[in-house]
Amino acid sequence: METPSELNGLRSSIDNLDAALVHILAERFRCTRQVGKLKARLQLPAADPAREERQIERLRSLAKAASLDPDFAEKFLAFIIKEVIRHHDFTRQANVDV
Amino acid sequence: METPSELNGLRSSIDNLDAALVHILAERFRCTRQVGKLKARLQLPAADPAREERQIERLRSLAKAASLDPDFAEKFLAFIIKEVIRHHDFTRQANVDV
Repeated sequence: METPSELNGLRSSIDNLDAALVHILAERFRCTRQVGKLKARLQLPAADPAREERQIERLRSLAKAASLDPDFAEKFLAFIIKEVIRHHDFTRQANVDV
Repeated sequence: METPSELNGLRSSIDNLDAALVHILAERFRCTRQVGKLKARLQLPAADPAREERQIERLRSLAKAASLDPDFAEKFLAFIIKEVIRHHDFTRQANVDV
């Protein structure tokens, strides 16, 4: 199927945004890995529910300002957190910061 | 609990990266909404499995280059696609581009 140039243009934007998402996610995992190591070294408690609560509220607020469904933003954070925990399980570290 | 400055620094990075993710996701949904409208207007077929296949392969490759688990990148794309389809359901548009 021949695609019109307007569609190709939008798809190029989507591809660029996806590349940005992948690289930012890679950097975010670098940070959470460092947090895991730091917490293990300092013998800090693994979870910080107050921090997580603040993260959720902040992301919902940012999403609203950007006209993104805040429920989606919250689901998105939960999705990433699940992966962070899975990574920590892999590395057998109990000290999770999400 | 008092948090050490090194931990606070990492958390600030995570917060900045999360804000970037939210804004890029908002822009991505703007693009897929436009694609939906364009496809409806031009009466183009709703799905394009070949395009989706290329997106998956490209994201996996980008993930590998960024030391991100390619399986996670693929799951991440599937997660977003699910939301795009849900959005399209909301707007009663059948023409989905993910």
